[in-house]
Amino acid sequence: MQTDDLDFEGYTCPLPIQQRETVVLGHGSGGKLSHDLLTRLFLPELGKAAPRALDDAALLGLEGARLALTTDSHVVAPLFFPGGDIGRLAVCGTVNDLAMVGARPLALTSAFIIEEGLPFETLQRVVQSMQSAAAEAGVFIAAGDTKVVQKGGADGLFITTSGVGSVPPGVEVSGANARPGDVVIVSGTLGDHGIAVLSQREGLGFETDLQSDVAPLNGLVAEMLAAGEIHVLRDPTRGGLATTLVEISRQSQVVIELRQEAIPVKAQVRAACEMLGFDPLYIANEGKLVAFAPEKDAGRILETMRKHRYGQEAAIIGRVVEAGSPQVRLKTAIGGTRLLDMLPGEMLPRIC
Amino acid sequence: MQTDDLDFEGYTCPLPIQQRETVVLGHGSGGKLSHDLLTRLFLPELGKAAPRALDDAALLGLEGARLALTTDSHVVAPLFFPGGDIGRLAVCGTVNDLAMVGARPLALTSAFIIEEGLPFETLQRVVQSMQSAAAEAGVFIAAGDTKVVQKGGADGLFITTSGVGSVPPGVEVSGANARPGDVVIVSGTLGDHGIAVLSQREGLGFETDLQSDVAPLNGLVAEMLAAGEIHVLRDPTRGGLATTLVEISRQSQVVIELRQEAIPVKAQVRAACEMLGFDPLYIANEGKLVAFAPEKDAGRILETMRKHRYGQEAAIIGRVVEAGSPQVRLKTAIGGTRLLDMLPGEMLPRIC
Repeated sequence: MQTDDLDFEGYTCPLPIQQRETVVLGHGSGGKLSHDLLTRLFLPELGKAAPRALDDAALLGLEGARLALTTDSHVVAPLFFPGGDIGRLAVCGTVNDLAMVGARPLALTSAFIIEEGLPFETLQRVVQSMQSAAAEAGVFIAAGDTKVVQKGGADGLFITTSGVGSVPPGVEVSGANARPGDVVIVSGTLGDHGIAVLSQREGLGFETDLQSDVAPLNGLVAEMLAAGEIHVLRDPTRGGLATTLVEISRQSQVVIELRQEAIPVKAQVRAACEMLGFDPLYIANEGKLVAFAPEKDAGRILETMRKHRYGQEAAIIGRVVEAGSPQVRLKTAIGGTRLLDMLPGEMLPRIC
Repeated sequence: MQTDDLDFEGYTCPLPIQQRETVVLGHGSGGKLSHDLLTRLFLPELGKAAPRALDDAALLGLEGARLALTTDSHVVAPLFFPGGDIGRLAVCGTVNDLAMVGARPLALTSAFIIEEGLPFETLQRVVQSMQSAAAEAGVFIAAGDTKVVQKGGADGLFITTSGVGSVPPGVEVSGANARPGDVVIVSGTLGDHGIAVLSQREGLGFETDLQSDVAPLNGLVAEMLAAGEIHVLRDPTRGGLATTLVEISRQSQVVIELRQEAIPVKAQVRAACEMLGFDPLYIANEGKLVAFAPEKDAGRILETMRKHRYGQEAAIIGRVVEAGSPQVRLKTAIGGTRLLDMLPGEMLPRIC
């Protein structure tokens, strides 16, 4: 747990948590403020016994087996977006968090908070979508709960999914395991989910045929683990690739260098980002992963990924250049260097 | 799973789910409408592989071990009430759901949905209360998530807790295991939680020194399981004792007979119920359990319970009189018989 050593070069929170009196939207962004909330409020109280509290799932020992455990609330607005909906998002988000510690998902739970007045037809579509995503991932939803709040007490529908998985013997994947010499691989184009959801928001006035990438990645991960040694897996959701890599650089205490022109971004995402003033590296993904693997295995892993439905556009985007004070450097196409930091505040509220 | 055989004498849903176009508050009551939503919408889609979908936690096999898995969202209003708060409630609710299938809790997860503007001090008090309840139960919170929604998008704070536990060899506890000859035991007075929360609501105009009973019951359950054979454990939360017993009578296909004068109810709860037109048998409890045990072991189990902090007022309140068409009969003090059914609609919204 890196909670005592969160400061690194260039890291300055705009306002320390103690000086803010209330929670703001940015605390849910997955970026710097979220990190602050986690490390200054939640971890000191709740994380005492959770040594890998900054990974996507926690690990528990049980009679020789290693269990992975994870949870996520989903508050995406709107509930349906191109390429997915809150139900598929909830199932994939949890399946992926388990996969990112190398675990095979065993079962999920789902808890629904419903605003009075939600049409049954909406609920039914969402539940069917969850079932279909669960079937695709080969996992089942073993337990559930439903709460209803009065009109105005919630915004339509929130779904919290939790999952338990088992980590096969020999698999050792953690954000703390990146090492100098590791190659950084992403499984495909970045920013698709965030921009697809955003295109549905009122008043933003842009049209695109872009689809969210929301997908279960456990199948891809199983094939990658069979293809070679993998040190780190992480899905760059809230906060995007940049925030994820900053987290890994801190957990592993390493310097990561990326080549900007190697990072795959769809033309529509690039165009929308330019129009809106966003950076694709900070946009949420829901069906992409980043992997760190030793150079010797990277080629075989990449080849395996490109044969998989969810890894066809996988690419090597950089490497770990040295151990030491954590840093993520982006080498731009014109030869410059930009230091990447966590997403500072809130860019896209309720993106997942 | 009893989903194909839900009709029993006296059971008539006021309006079939298909005829309602939207979700109403009653669908979150834990009573008949909740049951309808579960059995007609969720179970057909999600429950296919979940044979004990009507128990408080699902069971999974893993390399010889049996894992229990459960989840609950908590939307109680107000967040703080006499004897507890949403944090203690969230931890105890999940610990108790695990305990009710005979599982020892291994770890919990907690996911927070926070309305923008919630004071930090409130969040901190809740998180500290969760930590203190977890410490009391001897369980730790291994993973968490935080989402923030805009002002008006949620009502303050919702917490979803999930839990994983392991069921010791030899323990076979399920709502489907009640048998003729079983004695029905409750661990203490009924209705304390619901009335304590209600006393804090605006406009209800009653004062009481009543405290919620919210408490972790895993310690009590461990001692009970060591004291004798137990067939059924269930915590009578939403829908109260009556709804819980109707569920058990259906799962086990038995007739249950209760003696009204044996059912412990505090004088303040009785008074509040009379004033408000409620029946204590339908009020939520958060630190009570009902157990079914064979007559031969009941005395020993009761004695063990009465020595425990959370079982001092344990009492035998009835028995399973025969197998067959499910029914719950209440023998009144004056010699009459009343048939108990599930809570039909919504009595106390957002009680947990």
